[in-house]
Amino acid sequence: MKTITSRDNAQYKELVKLAGNAATRRKLGRTLLDGVHLCQSYLQLRGLPEQCIVSESALQHGEVMDIVGQLEARHGHVLALPDSLFKAISQVEHGIGVMFSVATPERSVSGPLAVNAVLLDGVQDPGNMGSILRSAAAAGIREVYCSAGSAYCWSPKVLRAAMGAHFVLDIYENVDLAELVRNARVSTLATSGYATQRLYDVDLRQPVAWLFGHEGQGVADDLLSLATHQVVIPHLGQVESLNVAACAAVCFFEQVRQNQV
Amino acid sequence: MKTITSRDNAQYKELVKLAGNAATRRKLGRTLLDGVHLCQSYLQLRGLPEQCIVSESALQHGEVMDIVGQLEARHGHVLALPDSLFKAISQVEHGIGVMFSVATPERSVSGPLAVNAVLLDGVQDPGNMGSILRSAAAAGIREVYCSAGSAYCWSPKVLRAAMGAHFVLDIYENVDLAELVRNARVSTLATSGYATQRLYDVDLRQPVAWLFGHEGQGVADDLLSLATHQVVIPHLGQVESLNVAACAAVCFFEQVRQNQV
Repeated sequence: MKTITSRDNAQYKELVKLAGNAATRRKLGRTLLDGVHLCQSYLQLRGLPEQCIVSESALQHGEVMDIVGQLEARHGHVLALPDSLFKAISQVEHGIGVMFSVATPERSVSGPLAVNAVLLDGVQDPGNMGSILRSAAAAGIREVYCSAGSAYCWSPKVLRAAMGAHFVLDIYENVDLAELVRNARVSTLATSGYATQRLYDVDLRQPVAWLFGHEGQGVADDLLSLATHQVVIPHLGQVESLNVAACAAVCFFEQVRQNQV
Repeated sequence: MKTITSRDNAQYKELVKLAGNAATRRKLGRTLLDGVHLCQSYLQLRGLPEQCIVSESALQHGEVMDIVGQLEARHGHVLALPDSLFKAISQVEHGIGVMFSVATPERSVSGPLAVNAVLLDGVQDPGNMGSILRSAAAAGIREVYCSAGSAYCWSPKVLRAAMGAHFVLDIYENVDLAELVRNARVSTLATSGYATQRLYDVDLRQPVAWLFGHEGQGVADDLLSLATHQVVIPHLGQVESLNVAACAAVCFFEQVRQNQV
């Protein structure tokens, strides 16, 4: 275990940048996983991080001791920081002081859609993005494709909201969704308040690609017109629509239901 | 229309407090609805606000002109502010400068649960709270009961996330949920990863009360033990649970589906 105590240390300064700056994270292709749950999930599902960063007081914490122990047994890198220095790079209030620095996978689309997938066209809110990833993973969907205008999936807020879903998903970013839909070997389903076919009346027992859009504007018209089906989630109240993450959850688990009946 | 140009004006200073301080909002029993959509919804569903506050530049905006016109025709109160003063009380970035000051209804539970309802035990995140209210309203559920430890439903963040759902719901706060469940004339359903009965196997064609809990800890054990049914949403992936708002949406719309089959 290495210890840094000075704010002027070059390695610490890089962590400060990584924590505070989205552009730095994208440029370096790295992000920070903050908190016990994310670090445990990563260790279990993806293996060793580039580095584990712990606050001095967290070294007394049982779950953190376990994480550090696993890393040291496998010759991983552990960096200890005084609590004040750790706090300056953590976004979790009242959290337990542990984080991983990890590489963010960059995937290129290599073939046509052939299995269950989620396509996100300009989803903006990190909480929504994280909730959609989490629901997709819980519903057994593995592939997620995001347009250039969507929120960055590997930001700390999205990571926190997704609760480890990232580590069981294959996430593709900056994807040309129109091309993906045109070449898809599965049906593409978009929800729309104007559609006449109900979600419940579509046969979801084969793989489909779910298409969701921007919180305000929905899926872009040119992309929507490429979808195989437009379906409506029937509403009983006076409220006009669902939050995009709620809408996605309803769709994913209607598919789970149909496959289990 | 009245105009205030000084930051030292007593009425403006009260608005600053109302905008920035949750305790003030609770104490005064008032809140601010920020943005065109919330104001339009309130006018349509609940009627005149105590006051409409507009920025000077927003007075040129078509939808705001329409709102102000409706208020003046019905002798409502409109207050115009210079853009800089408006911006200081608005939490919406790049928004159109219009908000309503409205009374927050305080309801007392007056009888046993007898219709569809949502019971929230310590839901913390304003985005989750708003999404649940929005989904409930869209699914035609009208009654929402929140425990003392839940997020305040009338905070600006919850209001924004709920997109007007507040105005078609009867929301009860600081409710003794255990007493409510004990006296209920409808079944109470809680979701749990440990339950053996699937959501899809419960008959939801009669009214039920849905019980959801804190994001991390779930429903408190003593309350959970009072629920008539514990049900599981089947998961296909390695991710252990759904976000509470996603979970609620799946439940509400499974009920909609069963009632429409």
